[in-house]
Amino acid sequence: MKDKHTIPRVAYLGPEGTFSGQAAKKFFGQNAIYKSLSSIQDVFEAVDLKEILYGVVPVENSIEGSVNVTLDLLRMSNLKIYGEIEEKIKHNLIASPGTKKHDLKVVISHQQALAQCRKYLKEQFPRVKVKQTDSTALAVRKVRTLKYAAAIGTEFAAKVYGMKIVAREIGDYSNNFTRFFVLSSNDFKPTGNDKTSIMFSAKHVPGALFKALEPFASRNINLSKIESRPLRQKPWEYVFFVEFKGHRRDSKCKEALQSLKKNCEFLKVLGSYRRAI
Amino acid sequence: MKDKHTIPRVAYLGPEGTFSGQAAKKFFGQNAIYKSLSSIQDVFEAVDLKEILYGVVPVENSIEGSVNVTLDLLRMSNLKIYGEIEEKIKHNLIASPGTKKHDLKVVISHQQALAQCRKYLKEQFPRVKVKQTDSTALAVRKVRTLKYAAAIGTEFAAKVYGMKIVAREIGDYSNNFTRFFVLSSNDFKPTGNDKTSIMFSAKHVPGALFKALEPFASRNINLSKIESRPLRQKPWEYVFFVEFKGHRRDSKCKEALQSLKKNCEFLKVLGSYRRAI
Repeated sequence: MKDKHTIPRVAYLGPEGTFSGQAAKKFFGQNAIYKSLSSIQDVFEAVDLKEILYGVVPVENSIEGSVNVTLDLLRMSNLKIYGEIEEKIKHNLIASPGTKKHDLKVVISHQQALAQCRKYLKEQFPRVKVKQTDSTALAVRKVRTLKYAAAIGTEFAAKVYGMKIVAREIGDYSNNFTRFFVLSSNDFKPTGNDKTSIMFSAKHVPGALFKALEPFASRNINLSKIESRPLRQKPWEYVFFVEFKGHRRDSKCKEALQSLKKNCEFLKVLGSYRRAI
Repeated sequence: MKDKHTIPRVAYLGPEGTFSGQAAKKFFGQNAIYKSLSSIQDVFEAVDLKEILYGVVPVENSIEGSVNVTLDLLRMSNLKIYGEIEEKIKHNLIASPGTKKHDLKVVISHQQALAQCRKYLKEQFPRVKVKQTDSTALAVRKVRTLKYAAAIGTEFAAKVYGMKIVAREIGDYSNNFTRFFVLSSNDFKPTGNDKTSIMFSAKHVPGALFKALEPFASRNINLSKIESRPLRQKPWEYVFFVEFKGHRRDSKCKEALQSLKKNCEFLKVLGSYRRAI
């Protein structure tokens, strides 16, 4: 920011009422101007073109796993990870005021939300039909105009669209969290409680991944995540997405990264940021 | 099989005309009775309940990455991996006989097929609408009854449903392959050209994954894949899905597995099978 007193502009994966929006507001609070965009790619582009200073996108869910689109875009993009946010995912059954539980004929929501409430729906509404929407927020918006229908979505979406919560926390998993990344042109300064995300491809020889992890193990640096994504140019070769505790400017981490660089085909540091988890 | 001359029954992710069906026929040939089922879970269940001897499901695509449903079901199930199949993914534009290219107003297909032909569609049909279906084969079946519409699907589906190929191999990626697993109650005998798939969870301490990979690196056993999936019971802990060259009964691999077992929280051998890749 050129001027520290400028109110930052923050884009997130919308529409209004998504978990990404909730996460963005948790990180930036009241002192920001928010803009909801319709895809993860749009958020990357808006920040990359400097139309907007920060972007908030989901990167991983503790039940479903990584958001592949986000990992693949991080690989291609020049943006840095500026922050991390964790949100507990609470699914609620939402309908128009006046709708009664025993009248329900259809439940709509995002595919993941429907999957994560499967047991609840089967037990409580064995005869109800389920239909997919592109996001939980869209489902809540849509349910306003539907009869005998409920959506699965956030409490915030229910408020935004003037809907009523029919049942709270209907998800089948109690350990349901989503991690979000805050993207920007730069990453964050060392705070003493940091995490670093990198991407690299190992050489295609036996023991290559083992050798790539050695610089971290020998320095007692804890890896918090390792994930692989297809290299795409060559079938069945991979890019590794790795996270570890510490800032890229900490001397131990700096040494490990220098050592890794010698033992891998390519290395990209995606950013260091204050740990939320 | 009790009787070697019995014709095996093979289930695959349907409907008829999917890449899974094509892969199943490549592996088992003419001498099998095929049954298409409507979900990956249904295929697992049919083989698990011994209604059917073999099941064919997709496990990984060289552009999109792993099929998480398959990995998660392998973790829970008692089935073994009996074989591996690789299929080149060729996307074709398919329509009713008589449909002309310049009349097209809508293109329908599975989300991944649409994504993998995005560049082609943008260049050739910038004004055409795209709509999602649950599978490429369903799109081809549906397009029979639609006007000014085309589907993206397999050559085989075009034949099955009596449709015409309007344009061949329209995919944006030339390196587009899908791997399939053949599931059964038992895995395959050693052939001298094998692969083994395992799942394990590492202890939650620094260097745990590094230590888990050491038995393979020290024996020069080549890991061909490592993927992580959420543990689910504990947020941000993972199960690793690993593949390496060799059969679980080969002495080198046997030793490595015994050594790994001592260094991890849980280990499950999913099966050894003849390499297709």
